[in-house]
Amino acid sequence: MATPHEPKQDRSRATRQRLLEATIDCLAETGWAAATVAVVAERAGVSRGAAQHHFPTREDLITAALEYMFETRMDQAKADALAVSEVAEGVARTEAVVAGLVESYTSPLFKAALQVWTHAAADPVLRERIVPMEARFGRISHRMAIEALGVDDTDPVTHHLVQATLDLARGLGLADVLTDDSLRRKEIVQQWAATLHMALTAPR
Amino acid sequence: MATPHEPKQDRSRATRQRLLEATIDCLAETGWAAATVAVVAERAGVSRGAAQHHFPTREDLITAALEYMFETRMDQAKADALAVSEVAEGVARTEAVVAGLVESYTSPLFKAALQVWTHAAADPVLRERIVPMEARFGRISHRMAIEALGVDDTDPVTHHLVQATLDLARGLGLADVLTDDSLRRKEIVQQWAATLHMALTAPR
Repeated sequence: MATPHEPKQDRSRATRQRLLEATIDCLAETGWAAATVAVVAERAGVSRGAAQHHFPTREDLITAALEYMFETRMDQAKADALAVSEVAEGVARTEAVVAGLVESYTSPLFKAALQVWTHAAADPVLRERIVPMEARFGRISHRMAIEALGVDDTDPVTHHLVQATLDLARGLGLADVLTDDSLRRKEIVQQWAATLHMALTAPR
Repeated sequence: MATPHEPKQDRSRATRQRLLEATIDCLAETGWAAATVAVVAERAGVSRGAAQHHFPTREDLITAALEYMFETRMDQAKADALAVSEVAEGVARTEAVVAGLVESYTSPLFKAALQVWTHAAADPVLRERIVPMEARFGRISHRMAIEALGVDDTDPVTHHLVQATLDLARGLGLADVLTDDSLRRKEIVQQWAATLHMALTAPR
C-alpha cells in the first residue's frame, strides 16, 4: 500500500498492478460484462479518475490485464521448471512438466483469459489487439515447455507432440470451467505423460 | 417455409428449428450479449410473440439451442463414423476418427457453445441448467469415439487416451477461435493419430 515515504513512481506502479489484479478477479468471477473500468477501480480501491489515468479505455485495461496474466503465468512456469529440474530424469520429469502445464490452464488466470478470448471472437477491434499478443505467448509457452522437458525441438515429432500437449492442456482447462474436473484430469495427465514420454524417447 | 397445406404441428416445429438455428448463428457471429430472444426472432423472421411462445425466457432459448447443437453434432458424428467404416483399418482409421472429432470442435456449433459455456462460468443459474446436459454430451461423445475407433473401453489405457483425444479436440477448437489455425492443426492431428494408434495397439 502507498505510504507518504513511498516514491511517486512506485505508488503509480502499485496502483497499476492493483487494477490489473482486480481486472483478472472480475473477469474470472463475474465474467466479461461486469469487468468495466468503473467496477474494476472500485474493487481495486482506486478512484475512477486514477484508473482512467492508467487505462483510458476498457480495451487498454483488458489488453494490459491479458499481458499481465501471461507474465504471471510465465513467472510461475519458470518456478515450476526450476522445481522440475530437481526431479529425477525420465518419465517422472515428463509427468511433472505435463502436470505443471495443465495446472496453469485451470487457474483463475486461464478463466479470466477465456472471458477475453470468447468476447474477442465476436469483437474485431479487440481481436486485432490480442491476436499478436497470443501468437507471442504461444511461441514463448512452447519454448518453455521444450526447455522444461529437455528435448530437441528441431525433431518434427517432438515439435508436434509438445504442441499437442499445450493444446491438450488448453482443452483440459476448458473442461474445468463449469465443474471441478480435477479427478478425471489427474488420470488423463498421468496417461498422456506416459504415452508422450514413450513417443519422445522412441528410436527414430 | 410454411404453406397453407402444411399441418399446424409441422409449421410449429419448423419455426422452432428456425429459432434454434438463428440462435446458433447469433452466438457464433455476434457473441453472447447480442443473442437475445428479440434479436434471434428478427433474424429467424419470426414474430417476437411466436418466439416467446416457444421459448418464454432467454435461458429456455439458450439451453434448447445447446441441446440442438449437440444433436446436430451427433448426427454429423454418426455420418462420419459411417464414412470411416469404409476406410481401411489401422492407422488410417484412427487418423480419420481423430480428424473428424477435431473438425467438429472447430465448427460454428463449437464457437456458439463456447459463448454459452463462457457466460455460464459466471452465471450460476445458467450453469446449473447446462452442467447435467454437458455431462450427458461428454458420455455420448466418448462412447461414439470408442465405437468409431473400434477399441475396448474397459482397458484403462484406451479409456484415458480416448478421453485425452476429446480434450485435445476441445483445446484445438479453442485455438481456432481468434485466428484460422487449420494448417498447424492438420500437423498436430496427424502426429496425435500416429502416437495414439501406436499406444492403442501396443501389447499390454
